[in-house]
Amino acid sequence: MNQQEATEVERANEAFYQAFESLDVKRMAAVWADSGHVTVVHPGWPLIQGHEAVMASWARIFEHASLMRFMVTATTCTVVEDWAWVTCTENITSVNDGRVGEGRVQATNIYVKRGALWLCVHHHGSPLGLG
Amino acid sequence: MNQQEATEVERANEAFYQAFESLDVKRMAAVWADSGHVTVVHPGWPLIQGHEAVMASWARIFEHASLMRFMVTATTCTVVEDWAWVTCTENITSVNDGRVGEGRVQATNIYVKRGALWLCVHHHGSPLGLG
Repeated sequence: MNQQEATEVERANEAFYQAFESLDVKRMAAVWADSGHVTVVHPGWPLIQGHEAVMASWARIFEHASLMRFMVTATTCTVVEDWAWVTCTENITSVNDGRVGEGRVQATNIYVKRGALWLCVHHHGSPLGLG
Repeated sequence: MNQQEATEVERANEAFYQAFESLDVKRMAAVWADSGHVTVVHPGWPLIQGHEAVMASWARIFEHASLMRFMVTATTCTVVEDWAWVTCTENITSVNDGRVGEGRVQATNIYVKRGALWLCVHHHGSPLGLG
């Protein structure tokens, strides 16, 4: 794996969290591969599969959120040719249904290269204690 | 993705859980790629990276467990050439430090093809409520 590709994937991961912070489903859709095979596990939720269902899950999360800010730490990135997986800790400040919250989530994000873009095909977030 | 490869990956995923049930670190090591890039997130734990550290984490789990039985449900498998990711729900019966427990974990497992073998490079388990 070369450094340039690792940097590209890390930027894709940043774009994923910027889309998350935007609370805009269209922006989130733009960072995902448009495939029936994409999958997501939100903290405490069962698996959701397929582009449409995955985007519906983001819409549901964004509907309740009026603010979402991520400080992403402990990022690891492994690039294997045209795919990569990233693990990171999401340190989250959020306002959901008017309630301010702080949380930590451990995430696995899988990306595939499509042309010049690295697109998300899987996101798995799981709750961590506040550190 | 063809059906034969999907079947191979599903068998690799079964072998992963058989190794887990065996509580034998050597058997668990045999189903993982021998790489510094492998990663694991156990439910509620932060990320662990590298073959040695990942195996040490299994040793720590196995040390406390005298029984671990998995009923794996809701498996999805996506094969992309020589790598694949599996999501599944682990319905677990366990005895840890003499205490019988039931639990549900949502898992993401990533496999890579090495010769004829599909080997694990990442496992992420996150707690689910009892369904």
